[in-house]
Amino acid sequence: MKRIFWLNVLLGLLISTAHAQPAKRPRDYGIRFGVIPTGPLNAITDVPGVRVGQVTLRQGTTIRTGVTAIVPHGGNLFQEKLPAAIYIGNGFGKLTGYSQVEELGTLETPIVLTNTLSVPTAADAVIDYTLNQPGNEQVRSLNPVVGETNDGFLNDIRGRHVTRQHVLDAIRNAKPGPVEEGSVGAGTGTVCFGYKGGIGTASRRLPASLGGYTVGVLVQTNFGGVLQIAGVPVGVALGQYSYKEKLDGSCMMVVLTDAPVDARNLKRLAKRAFLGLGHTGGIASNGSGDYVIAVSTAYQIPHQSSSPFDTLKLLRNDDTSPLFMAAIEATEEAIINSLFAAGQSPADTFSGTEGHSVKPLPVQKVVEMVGRK
Amino acid sequence: MKRIFWLNVLLGLLISTAHAQPAKRPRDYGIRFGVIPTGPLNAITDVPGVRVGQVTLRQGTTIRTGVTAIVPHGGNLFQEKLPAAIYIGNGFGKLTGYSQVEELGTLETPIVLTNTLSVPTAADAVIDYTLNQPGNEQVRSLNPVVGETNDGFLNDIRGRHVTRQHVLDAIRNAKPGPVEEGSVGAGTGTVCFGYKGGIGTASRRLPASLGGYTVGVLVQTNFGGVLQIAGVPVGVALGQYSYKEKLDGSCMMVVLTDAPVDARNLKRLAKRAFLGLGHTGGIASNGSGDYVIAVSTAYQIPHQSSSPFDTLKLLRNDDTSPLFMAAIEATEEAIINSLFAAGQSPADTFSGTEGHSVKPLPVQKVVEMVGRK
Amino acid sequence: MKRIFWLNVLLGLLISTAHAQPAKRPRDYGIRFGVIPTGPLNAITDVPGVRVGQVTLRQGTTIRTGVTAIVPHGGNLFQEKLPAAIYIGNGFGKLTGYSQVEELGTLETPIVLTNTLSVPTAADAVIDYTLNQPGNEQVRSLNPVVGETNDGFLNDIRGRHVTRQHVLDAIRNAKPGPVEEGSVGAGTGTVCFGYKGGIGTASRRLPASLGGYTVGVLVQTNFGGVLQIAGVPVGVALGQYSYKEKLDGSCMMVVLTDAPVDARNLKRLAKRAFLGLGHTGGIASNGSGDYVIAVSTAYQIPHQSSSPFDTLKLLRNDDTSPLFMAAIEATEEAIINSLFAAGQSPADTFSGTEGHSVKPLPVQKVVEMVGRK
Amino acid sequence: MKRIFWLNVLLGLLISTAHAQPAKRPRDYGIRFGVIPTGPLNAITDVPGVRVGQVTLRQGTTIRTGVTAIVPHGGNLFQEKLPAAIYIGNGFGKLTGYSQVEELGTLETPIVLTNTLSVPTAADAVIDYTLNQPGNEQVRSLNPVVGETNDGFLNDIRGRHVTRQHVLDAIRNAKPGPVEEGSVGAGTGTVCFGYKGGIGTASRRLPASLGGYTVGVLVQTNFGGVLQIAGVPVGVALGQYSYKEKLDGSCMMVVLTDAPVDARNLKRLAKRAFLGLGHTGGIASNGSGDYVIAVSTAYQIPHQSSSPFDTLKLLRNDDTSPLFMAAIEATEEAIINSLFAAGQSPADTFSGTEGHSVKPLPVQKVVEMVGRK
Repeated sequence: MKRIFWLNVLLGLLISTAHAQPAKRPRDYGIRFGVIPTGPLNAITDVPGVRVGQVTLRQGTTIRTGVTAIVPHGGNLFQEKLPAAIYIGNGFGKLTGYSQVEELGTLETPIVLTNTLSVPTAADAVIDYTLNQPGNEQVRSLNPVVGETNDGFLNDIRGRHVTRQHVLDAIRNAKPGPVEEGSVGAGTGTVCFGYKGGIGTASRRLPASLGGYTVGVLVQTNFGGVLQIAGVPVGVALGQYSYKEKLDGSCMMVVLTDAPVDARNLKRLAKRAFLGLGHTGGIASNGSGDYVIAVSTAYQIPHQSSSPFDTLKLLRNDDTSPLFMAAIEATEEAIINSLFAAGQSPADTFSGTEGHSVKPLPVQKVVEMVGRK
Repeated sequence: MKRIFWLNVLLGLLISTAHAQPAKRPRDYGIRFGVIPTGPLNAITDVPGVRVGQVTLRQGTTIRTGVTAIVPHGGNLFQEKLPAAIYIGNGFGKLTGYSQVEELGTLETPIVLTNTLSVPTAADAVIDYTLNQPGNEQVRSLNPVVGETNDGFLNDIRGRHVTRQHVLDAIRNAKPGPVEEGSVGAGTGTVCFGYKGGIGTASRRLPASLGGYTVGVLVQTNFGGVLQIAGVPVGVALGQYSYKEKLDGSCMMVVLTDAPVDARNLKRLAKRAFLGLGHTGGIASNGSGDYVIAVSTAYQIPHQSSSPFDTLKLLRNDDTSPLFMAAIEATEEAIINSLFAAGQSPADTFSGTEGHSVKPLPVQKVVEMVGRK
Repeated sequence: MKRIFWLNVLLGLLISTAHAQPAKRPRDYGIRFGVIPTGPLNAITDVPGVRVGQVTLRQGTTIRTGVTAIVPHGGNLFQEKLPAAIYIGNGFGKLTGYSQVEELGTLETPIVLTNTLSVPTAADAVIDYTLNQPGNEQVRSLNPVVGETNDGFLNDIRGRHVTRQHVLDAIRNAKPGPVEEGSVGAGTGTVCFGYKGGIGTASRRLPASLGGYTVGVLVQTNFGGVLQIAGVPVGVALGQYSYKEKLDGSCMMVVLTDAPVDARNLKRLAKRAFLGLGHTGGIASNGSGDYVIAVSTAYQIPHQSSSPFDTLKLLRNDDTSPLFMAAIEATEEAIINSLFAAGQSPADTFSGTEGHSVKPLPVQKVVEMVGRK
Repeated sequence: MKRIFWLNVLLGLLISTAHAQPAKRPRDYGIRFGVIPTGPLNAITDVPGVRVGQVTLRQGTTIRTGVTAIVPHGGNLFQEKLPAAIYIGNGFGKLTGYSQVEELGTLETPIVLTNTLSVPTAADAVIDYTLNQPGNEQVRSLNPVVGETNDGFLNDIRGRHVTRQHVLDAIRNAKPGPVEEGSVGAGTGTVCFGYKGGIGTASRRLPASLGGYTVGVLVQTNFGGVLQIAGVPVGVALGQYSYKEKLDGSCMMVVLTDAPVDARNLKRLAKRAFLGLGHTGGIASNGSGDYVIAVSTAYQIPHQSSSPFDTLKLLRNDDTSPLFMAAIEATEEAIINSLFAAGQSPADTFSGTEGHSVKPLPVQKVVEMVGRK
């Protein structure tokens, strides 16, 4: 087992080297999504304190999977919980951790994304991670939040190649700054609109007059529909769509913000990310597991407290609409970013198990189409 | 009271005459939404048996309101209920009838749309209508479904000018065939994306290989965001949008289908209409009441039965995705249809109470923009 | 119309005189429910500031209905909203106002209870009341919360005898202090466990060490099952129950508290009232409309504010369980209180429309049974 | 690892031998719950085809945990799914599998119960089990349903002693007939109302005139409140209750029926089990994870079908109330059964990790109390 792990690390190194030249993003081509300015990195890590870690498993011709971890703050999440909500767009999926977030309105672990059949492994690793954090010696109950999409077209998913160690590595290697997009981490084996999907991220920063809040989104794209990019019906133009066949697939969306909103308004914010998915032409097909996990980093809720009260300074309902718009725009852009990045991935990214292969998004052709608008 | 009513009828007549020349729809200009063919009328009435009735109240300079009734079948709806579901996109609204539809999965009255403060009047009229239908002499409980948006910018909404009789007229005058769109019925006083909103409708018909089902949508548009038409960012181009001010407003969406789906899958279908709203640039702002009422006409559930069983032939989950796509497309088109039609309404449509006025959608300019794509 | 109104008032007066001798409550017989102390009045009005107003319509042999209004604070509820939630135990009912409370977490009108077919009339009256309150001159949207049960067995419900004026009277006459129970207000015509039902109320006050909060409950009882009183299977002993026939009926439950809990925890509190209904032997049958409206008076949320923030001092999740227990106990006791009070009502209470009649709870016999335990 | 496994088996054998004398159940003492007759075994296995398997881990002084598997039919559950629903009473829990059951209305794996921190292990084992079933060679996505309560007071829960093999054993050893109750399987380490909790089961069979359907319930009891047995306030009488301290704990409830009800009515049925929990004095405290999984065995929904339709003969809404009552009664009895059985368990059952111990229910004293009624 250990040997395989080091092999993975080695392969991971090779791959990251191969990736050294980052993919050009739609904005680099002048494509715009919506009207609100992005944050400096146009990434979920624009929300202060948020870190992302990824482990990519691409081995031989059959393993195309991985792990993406989003760590919302640098302390002990169990002891200092964050307000959170999960919106279920279409629930054909295996996300774990839903009901406690819904009931208590808090997140107490990092968020981990992986493939469908590796959710238990990832949840176990999140338990390992949390039980072993200093200060958690007495913890006997915790709620891991793990999402997934099904990469079984390219990946030997039945082999369950993700290990606890991969998940722990993703959590522990999480870092601020730019987030690698495309066929990496939990997006290594995914397919989106018939093209290679993957991980994408984007952000919006509201003007100071609206509070100056940041909304950051990270997505794992693995779904179908009729692709639209910045409103242009690319899927139709490329003849790459279908409503006659099964359109299965899924999209995990993680929304972070530093706006002071509680679980109720986070759930509303999460729901708007689902509208962002709609903007790209996603239809949330029957077989789709479309989940949005929304978290605020604006305040922490201590696990234990000497006071029976939490004193909170919360954004009023009336002032949430700009955040809603930000979540829509950032989700749309994150999804398209995932396609652009995956479309520029190394060649071995496009083939996988059982001889299956997918096309990369034809980035140049798309840029011309969208530019024409 | 009676005199006012006849005055209304007279005015209504004048108005319908003025409308004799129907507005040109986006499709008449070559604009397309999605990939699925429309039904023959591109209207909710493409679903066999569905009828629509409208009463428009446009009097003096302050009354701009009305009623739109959707009658899903021609029999006694209470005695022969239909499977139904209601999806709440954003619940800042006063729709009545939600919980019973959610619990029992059935609709037992016509659906009525009107203005916010006239919901009780309309519900009362639906009770009148139902109690007085032959065969309902013993009915002592019924669940009126009435939706609304707030037309208080143009309409003297506090005056509550809608009467029971208006509602009964809308129900009783309901007819198959083309549906009048624009500033009529419950859309008489509404505002959408900063332009005159109103009633819109559209439909999709699946190919025979996918069951040949029809999905019809009718909307009452009264919401904000950044207008997109067939993907083209018209709102940005026209400088007509805002995310800095309150974006309140609402959208009522009614989805009818002849596909044999039960309440659970109707709720899923309803949720896709919300994605269609997203396609137009709607953001479901904090102050928005965005509701989707979905009904199937494929089978009836008798109020009373000699058998303890209902025998149902239901579409499998796996075969619902094309319906989902149809609902998204038809909702998007119905919303844009409402704007086009309202944009071609008579001049007195654009002004109202307290000297307020709104612009019509600049249809020609928009057609050029969208044509440019 | 006016004459009938004064006749009502007169009749009301006669009836209240007849009621001058208040009914004995279970506690007067030594029957105890649970372990937490009651408030001083053992009534919803033990929550400071809460007022209740009732109008009873008992005319001739066919009219047995009325209105009960719960006014949670003495100011302008629209301008100073309260945190609120609604839990739907079984949704075969016509309560109006659900979705906005769910979305925004606030109550902005008094709560009104009446009969099923008079919900629109009552909602209209709540609109009248609110539009006409000083300070609400610009209000163009508001969310009336009106609940109901179906008193159509004793009451000529199809006649819709409740008028807007009755509702306004109930709201305006609302007062603190003891609450009349039994066949009064919205409970005038109801039937519960086969006996005369009605209005009941109870409260719990937590010890100072747990915050000293009060939880008050008011119920409108109109449902079936197998009656249990303080755990004693009275329904079985009296041969008064059935699971073979339709067990329709409904229960409206209103829970007020001065504990500082937000909408999320109020929804959880509301759900516990449903367990209290279960304690009495209620089964939430298919035809039951069982709703719980929970409201906190601990803080107000202004309709308009110069700040984008609400600063709230909220009870932590960990400290909510004693409130949950209080809601269960108070709901159970309020339901049984309604039966005891109705069982001691004037004779004309037990008969109604179409020659229907129900039995009063045989209070003495029940006291002996329960005393035996 | 293997050696430990055989040690477990050996210990298990010893333990089952010790249990050879089955505990007396409340009915053996003449205690009755409700009015509907039980099935022949008064167990979940009265529903034809349902099997239960349990693995008990009781080793040394620190391991007190286990697995209980409910297998609803004897075929390939993935290929022949069953209609199902999950109701969340209080969501402070880690049940996995919720959202897909909610979305699609089907169960496709056995239901497994275990301890909180072993949910991922159990879910992994359910994946193993399903992937390896003949006919599932192409399965790449499946939704394990695993529930839990927290046995960390008696059990070294942080040690995560449940292995995949234990779970597979529980599934594979599942059998029809009597179900062992008390400190066994997933109930080995649980605590309920301050006494030793465990596994309990009960059933109800409706008269032929109401369809003759069976409702079977199995519970894993680990919660608090003020114990009531058949209505008698045993907890108060024994001075064994509290509302001043944290009342954490949880209850998993599994409801099976052969009545032909779909997911919507199964969710309603599930909700009634929550009322049954209320009957025992449970309050669904803040820290409680109270979930009900309801499944019908009346019809199967094939994973793949040559037809786009499922033809279903479903019980009408109007005929569901007797099932509701059955679920309440059976849940109440199953919970009390768990306490009685656990109260008669071997002595080593009452102590565990960190020197913790709990009392057994004082069965004889309780019988006298309840007999007094």
